[in-house]
Amino acid sequence: MNRHDSIKQHLANAGDGAPTQLRYARDGIITPEIEYAATVEGLDPEFVRQEIADGRMIIPVNLKHPEALPFLIGRKALCKVNANIGSSAIVADTDYELRKLKMAIKYGADTAMDLSTGGDIPGIRNAILRNSTVPIGTVPIYEAIARVESPSDITPELLLEVVEEQAAQGVDYMTVHASILLEHIPLVNSRTTGIVSRGGSLIACWMAEHDRENPFYTHYDQLLEICRKYDVSLSLGDALRPGCLADASDDAQFAELTVHGELGRRAREKDVQVMIEGPGHIPFHEIEMNMKKEQELCDDAPFYVLGPVVTDIAPGYDHITSAIGGTMAAYHGAAMLCYVTPKEHLGLPDENDVREGVIASKIAAHAADVALGKPGARDRDDAMAKARFSFDWEEQFRLALDGDRAREMHDETLPDVAYKTAEYCSMCGEKFCAMRISKELQRYSDERS
Amino acid sequence: MNRHDSIKQHLANAGDGAPTQLRYARDGIITPEIEYAATVEGLDPEFVRQEIADGRMIIPVNLKHPEALPFLIGRKALCKVNANIGSSAIVADTDYELRKLKMAIKYGADTAMDLSTGGDIPGIRNAILRNSTVPIGTVPIYEAIARVESPSDITPELLLEVVEEQAAQGVDYMTVHASILLEHIPLVNSRTTGIVSRGGSLIACWMAEHDRENPFYTHYDQLLEICRKYDVSLSLGDALRPGCLADASDDAQFAELTVHGELGRRAREKDVQVMIEGPGHIPFHEIEMNMKKEQELCDDAPFYVLGPVVTDIAPGYDHITSAIGGTMAAYHGAAMLCYVTPKEHLGLPDENDVREGVIASKIAAHAADVALGKPGARDRDDAMAKARFSFDWEEQFRLALDGDRAREMHDETLPDVAYKTAEYCSMCGEKFCAMRISKELQRYSDERS
Repeated sequence: MNRHDSIKQHLANAGDGAPTQLRYARDGIITPEIEYAATVEGLDPEFVRQEIADGRMIIPVNLKHPEALPFLIGRKALCKVNANIGSSAIVADTDYELRKLKMAIKYGADTAMDLSTGGDIPGIRNAILRNSTVPIGTVPIYEAIARVESPSDITPELLLEVVEEQAAQGVDYMTVHASILLEHIPLVNSRTTGIVSRGGSLIACWMAEHDRENPFYTHYDQLLEICRKYDVSLSLGDALRPGCLADASDDAQFAELTVHGELGRRAREKDVQVMIEGPGHIPFHEIEMNMKKEQELCDDAPFYVLGPVVTDIAPGYDHITSAIGGTMAAYHGAAMLCYVTPKEHLGLPDENDVREGVIASKIAAHAADVALGKPGARDRDDAMAKARFSFDWEEQFRLALDGDRAREMHDETLPDVAYKTAEYCSMCGEKFCAMRISKELQRYSDERS
Repeated sequence: MNRHDSIKQHLANAGDGAPTQLRYARDGIITPEIEYAATVEGLDPEFVRQEIADGRMIIPVNLKHPEALPFLIGRKALCKVNANIGSSAIVADTDYELRKLKMAIKYGADTAMDLSTGGDIPGIRNAILRNSTVPIGTVPIYEAIARVESPSDITPELLLEVVEEQAAQGVDYMTVHASILLEHIPLVNSRTTGIVSRGGSLIACWMAEHDRENPFYTHYDQLLEICRKYDVSLSLGDALRPGCLADASDDAQFAELTVHGELGRRAREKDVQVMIEGPGHIPFHEIEMNMKKEQELCDDAPFYVLGPVVTDIAPGYDHITSAIGGTMAAYHGAAMLCYVTPKEHLGLPDENDVREGVIASKIAAHAADVALGKPGARDRDDAMAKARFSFDWEEQFRLALDGDRAREMHDETLPDVAYKTAEYCSMCGEKFCAMRISKELQRYSDERS
């Protein structure tokens, strides 16, 4: 029985109410999931077990989602990348979502979130879960909204009902905007762009209209009970993340972060794994401070950031503004980057946007892993350098994050198969290829020595 | 007479041997060029004069290039972006180069380098100079190579002849690989990718073959004499920049950097403006150290960096790996970023690659300017945030670094003119637009207060 099969069996055997990975870890048990995920990254399983036990790593794996391979989220593990997919009121087609999922996984997404808001939401989600080898996250309030006439008709009971249904289907982690409180709402008034979190703005509106506290906060214990039952990891959503540089690092953002810390502790007390979601739009020089603040206020729980986007003036290129911020964030401790696609701020991403977004985030995550000297992180870079110097083009394509794109660009000017072993490319041409000339230089040196 | 006309007249009146901007600045004179360039950036002209006098800023403006507007390169000025264009042996078409120049300037390149190596090199360069409103740089050894049978036929006299001809044509700054010395060549042997600078590898080969010292080094005084005569700024080329992460920050690189410092001082003694070229491929965590080292060894002369690329495994996306490294470099003091296009390591960039490369570098330069709090740097971001919150799509396109791209992406799903004032876009749709919901929230708050 291979490792994946043994994990599947382990999950299948676990009845409702089986211990969560956090509980096992605290009890000193290295589960097959922990062992698998640790081994894949070259980490010591006992070290990983301790990180999970202390809440600094999570292993998001729903008991009802045996299709997925477990993996680690935490700042001592490799930095991970999430890709958002999902239907909208305008486009709701299961096959299209599966194509986006496939695209995301092909280019290296470690997890995907199904943010569907249109069409047969449970049906699309089920198709995604059953076809995904990576863990799947959701934002349950989106489905809750779809079930009511107006957002104000939402009830705490409906929210819990949706959470339970999604958990039973196998969703591995869920974003809940539980940390925005009534007292935070006035802090938003002075902002330039208000609330830019979809789920967060809906919850805030509900609270303001009913003048009642956040239902995810008031019913947090019931929510934890459901999560514990299926081992759903909580991703505490940042309703108050800044939507522009002007709003970055403000009182609203940090007030919510403080509550994140409190709710994180409460989750772990109930054996529920938890990560914290973070900004957003942050100027480059404030990213380090933001990462440190999360570690301090939230007991170093894994930080899952969106972007951060480091300038507001590049719509159409926000995968790049995010790759810049994401590298800096991961370098200072972010555990997972939520990709941002070129369409951010402009429209719904298509398949190609998914590819561009995943690659940009993978670059950021990898650049930070290399900078932090994580085990083996630079091996692929070194292999690429060797392939370049030996003009082994096929090996370069194989090692590239997006070998298809690299091959396509190379072949644009030199498509012939003979050029796959040529000691130059069309960038400089044969006469001006520095690497080819470098080899001549080596010959001179060898002759003289 | 407007400012540009007065600059043109000033340049036209200056005979051969007129003082350079550096000489003027040292004599306490604020030239029209200094005043113009300072005013454009909102800097005090006297402050700029002092920076130039001390060699921490340059204003690359050849007396024979009145078509160009002067601008500042230095770490206290806004970070600048250079775009490389130029013919190759495979494609040599003047109109095509002019189209690439136009594209680069349209998307915000502050300067361009004509790296032509094929066709009528002086003719292409003249067309570029006469049509460019931005300063133009060159790498004279490329033209020298084109004039001889074999690189080994190059003589110091030929190099100086080419430099003088290009200077007389109006080239504003020139890359010369003067700082690689015979004693450095053995340091390259242990490298993974040897020498990856085209000019540098040619000079190194010449030195090794003839067993003679670098001709740009031995004839440096004559070179300075030509530069002084036309006020050509020197850009000391980094022949020994690393070509992969494995070679970063090695002995070869820093040995050359030390000579850069020496040659920079010698240039300024002769009233010649000078900047220093830098790497290359550098892991993220070594970028700050690299910037500091240049400031220390080269007296804080403007540092003009290529990339730095922070991982080797993303061919096809090296505009992104460079934007990451470029932001970090500029944040720690790089004065100008040389763009890297998606085609880097794969082929010759086309017009679209120029656009992608310029925008990626502009993002990096701007993100660093914002992070450093340079005067007015964040104004455009703040205006964008306001335009977003008021759903003023036309204003968003106007403020975007690439408004054409932003409009195109927005219109992909919502092309109708009515959507230009819609309070949502296709990303989330109307029901889920957080900003629209935020406005409702504000209404609730207003009602209660």
